[in-house]
Amino acid sequence: MATIKLTDRQEEIIRLVKENQPMTSEKIAASLNLTRAALRPDLAILTMTGILDARPKVGYIYSNKPSYSLVYDYIRKISVEEIMSKPVVVQEDTSIYDAILHLFLNDVGTLFVENNDALVGAISRKDFLKIAMGGTDMHKVPVGIIMTRMPNIVFVDPKDTAYFAAKKIIDHEVDSLPVVEKFINEGKELFKIVGKVSKTNITKIFVKLGENG
Amino acid sequence: MATIKLTDRQEEIIRLVKENQPMTSEKIAASLNLTRAALRPDLAILTMTGILDARPKVGYIYSNKPSYSLVYDYIRKISVEEIMSKPVVVQEDTSIYDAILHLFLNDVGTLFVENNDALVGAISRKDFLKIAMGGTDMHKVPVGIIMTRMPNIVFVDPKDTAYFAAKKIIDHEVDSLPVVEKFINEGKELFKIVGKVSKTNITKIFVKLGENG
Repeated sequence: MATIKLTDRQEEIIRLVKENQPMTSEKIAASLNLTRAALRPDLAILTMTGILDARPKVGYIYSNKPSYSLVYDYIRKISVEEIMSKPVVVQEDTSIYDAILHLFLNDVGTLFVENNDALVGAISRKDFLKIAMGGTDMHKVPVGIIMTRMPNIVFVDPKDTAYFAAKKIIDHEVDSLPVVEKFINEGKELFKIVGKVSKTNITKIFVKLGENG
Repeated sequence: MATIKLTDRQEEIIRLVKENQPMTSEKIAASLNLTRAALRPDLAILTMTGILDARPKVGYIYSNKPSYSLVYDYIRKISVEEIMSKPVVVQEDTSIYDAILHLFLNDVGTLFVENNDALVGAISRKDFLKIAMGGTDMHKVPVGIIMTRMPNIVFVDPKDTAYFAAKKIIDHEVDSLPVVEKFINEGKELFKIVGKVSKTNITKIFVKLGENG
């Protein structure tokens, strides 16, 4: 990963501005025994990176806001593939009761449902809680009856960006998305479940981005 | 928010390097009818921002990796206060059944429990599902009996960073944290619930960071 290596002089400029802000380029130059021309490339780098902010007729102040476009570019480069985790999958005829056991044993918030190796549904902790509050016989009724069914399931491709997945999670108000690969069976377009990406995965990247590199 | 504004010449350098990489500074200078000295500040900015990568004896290549330290700094500047949402709070003597209704009506994953205006507990969708699977009389038993109780609740302060909150969420494997303010009552240190920060809030910042600014 690329890291900005500020020069000693640039670090010194930051220190000076922090202590004396707002500080004009003349004053900075004088403090460092430099000409303004010699200082120009350093000030350009420090303002372009967002570390210093140049206020016309006032001088430089310390802002330390990174350039938005850099954060944007970085976030857009992370793929679903890099962050996805193992999905927990049950069959369409699994009983609700057994499905809930799977949910607890694997400590996940959403189960994905398949039939003949293809994604057919999804069911969340919230759906299960609703059912558990009602009078349904959880040992007898299969998950296929209560799940959200294709094509009403939002999914992503392993090559999609984590940003795209996070946006789908927020827009569709779900906790988790299946990551799928398309396949054709008897002329029908079907989807094989290869992973999942959840708010937990996104929160983990956020923590990783904020860690001291 | 600070945005990097590349000059036309810098954009032209990026385009040249993309097409001809690796490309030495001599070649870039020649293509632009410039001296290497005139080009130096532009190349410094393009490598420091991580847009170009300088390989000794090979030349410049297009990398477009943002500086890690910038993303890091940016993430560390977002506070809990800026991203927290409204908490759903019930009283310790609320029945489990009524608490679940609150959960559904407000469409949240975690309820916080207070007594005399102080945080005393938390209870999640997962806890409720466990109870619903058992034989507990949800109309009679109060949430106080089944909740996770203080001091076993992880919380944050409005002034903490979103990074710190996200890290606590991951480290303690919870979906949501109460945001609290300390107060003293009869010599006891207590906490007033003023917000909540969840994986949803973190996912929303992630989407915001990735949006085209």
